[in-house]
Amino acid sequence: MKKLLLFFTSLLITLSLSSQGNKNLAELLGYPRDSKLLIIHADDMGLAHSVNSACIKAFNNKGITSGSIMVPCPWASEIAAYVKENPGLDVGIHLTLTSEWDLYKWGGISPSDKIQSLLDKNNYFYPSVEELGKVAKGVEAEKELRAQIDKAIASGVQPTHLDTHMGSVLANPELIKIYLNLSDAYHLPILFPRAYLSWFQPDMAKSMESKFFLLDNLFMLEPKMISGRWIDAYKKGLEAMKPGLNEMIVHLAFDNEEMQAISKGHDDYGSAWRQHDLDLVSSPEFKELLNTNHIILIGWRQIRDLMNTPSLK
Amino acid sequence: MKKLLLFFTSLLITLSLSSQGNKNLAELLGYPRDSKLLIIHADDMGLAHSVNSACIKAFNNKGITSGSIMVPCPWASEIAAYVKENPGLDVGIHLTLTSEWDLYKWGGISPSDKIQSLLDKNNYFYPSVEELGKVAKGVEAEKELRAQIDKAIASGVQPTHLDTHMGSVLANPELIKIYLNLSDAYHLPILFPRAYLSWFQPDMAKSMESKFFLLDNLFMLEPKMISGRWIDAYKKGLEAMKPGLNEMIVHLAFDNEEMQAISKGHDDYGSAWRQHDLDLVSSPEFKELLNTNHIILIGWRQIRDLMNTPSLK
Repeated sequence: MKKLLLFFTSLLITLSLSSQGNKNLAELLGYPRDSKLLIIHADDMGLAHSVNSACIKAFNNKGITSGSIMVPCPWASEIAAYVKENPGLDVGIHLTLTSEWDLYKWGGISPSDKIQSLLDKNNYFYPSVEELGKVAKGVEAEKELRAQIDKAIASGVQPTHLDTHMGSVLANPELIKIYLNLSDAYHLPILFPRAYLSWFQPDMAKSMESKFFLLDNLFMLEPKMISGRWIDAYKKGLEAMKPGLNEMIVHLAFDNEEMQAISKGHDDYGSAWRQHDLDLVSSPEFKELLNTNHIILIGWRQIRDLMNTPSLK
Repeated sequence: MKKLLLFFTSLLITLSLSSQGNKNLAELLGYPRDSKLLIIHADDMGLAHSVNSACIKAFNNKGITSGSIMVPCPWASEIAAYVKENPGLDVGIHLTLTSEWDLYKWGGISPSDKIQSLLDKNNYFYPSVEELGKVAKGVEAEKELRAQIDKAIASGVQPTHLDTHMGSVLANPELIKIYLNLSDAYHLPILFPRAYLSWFQPDMAKSMESKFFLLDNLFMLEPKMISGRWIDAYKKGLEAMKPGLNEMIVHLAFDNEEMQAISKGHDDYGSAWRQHDLDLVSSPEFKELLNTNHIILIGWRQIRDLMNTPSLK
């Protein structure tokens, strides 16, 4: 990762967004300095009708505060139309360069002959980030990622942030640079945990810290965390949460035939998993945990608007 | 349609497939001369998981004898994998150049910049055959149609025939010529009703009659035919059926959330319609009608194999 240094001279800009004067992010947003800010974020909108309807349910019952769309997926038009009709929703772009299921596949939205390095012999994205990272040409990845953002905007979505499916855009240093540059180009905050600063040389890390609103903590349920009731791992995550900017990623869907067929052969983040997550964020017990742990729920929109406040530039 | 004459000089070949000596198609297939041959055909495989599972159910309960795959659709890989594992199934390619639903869309499988005349501004196929017919460039349509067939074959499907989604390939004379040429190129029979011969000049019609296995009758339920019970229109169709080669097209799916979301706003050939068709072909009453009317069920495979019998060439 030391090669990253070569890519980031353009980032050596003396902006300071995450603290302005003595104010930290929480204060800039109008909360007490030691607030535990939390974005509860649904990934993978657009993947399936099952996912879309679960996310709409969770937005309606306040189980999530934000979500993001996989623009190349078959059901992206459905959720984009919904977001256009409900412009208050906090929805970003889930930048997608992988296609991980066995028999339900997608490629890019760019002409396939213009992004060949990103595609397998059937013109689908590769299933794994590792494979992508080895073969992706930066110029082709940037073309496709810009096309995804532009298409969402053209369909009426006003994205609040950028993040990334399976960490696609973190697959190699060149892709990371593109991801950071897209934040600049579209004036959108990106999901980027502070822990990743260790990838960079110290002066670069310091520059990035002043340039981006970094996540202090990212919580996502992983298979190894599961024991006992579904909520137990989330309870641990919430109890361990510290003041600063936190995000909790959930994967929502109804456990129905469509989602079962998509995720056949994959229990992790599969159909039953997503129903558990939907039940979790919809439950009074989860909401009580948020209260007990003095969590303040926010969305990416507040951060986007702060980032684009003239006095902070 | 008189312009068609210009396109078909290549078809003036003195093959005679639909009768060999004194034998007609039924006799060539080993049935009595005046047999009412019927292919019961499920369109739109690959459109949705709901469609795929309904078609698999209908193949299993002998409700259909044939079906065809829409290769550009999101669920084509699922049904292609099933057909590969069940090579005895009678499955062809549902050549697709239209995308008719509002929020569940697809384009071609060729690079979008190589088939621009077939695509709207979002790189989806146009929703109507009329629109397609006005703007499609033949060379681009042929490229895409060949890609669809080639992809199905590469995925392990051994197609038994070609037919066409919404009549895409009948949208203008140039497309019709391509469709007929694909039959030659891939040695596959095509759905082509005898009634369409009236589009051609008499000598051309005569040539086509001797070259292709034309359908003597094509029955597909249309909205105006519906009255009383779902089976009533089909009963009329079966009772009117004459000796020769007949096809009955059905549209199968389970009436579930996935299919309802796809067909939202479209009752005709929508979710409930498709469940009615599935219930119909699965019902003892429908099978009894086939018996009562002395219908002989066949598939396209028998015709494909006959077409490729050396002694008939």
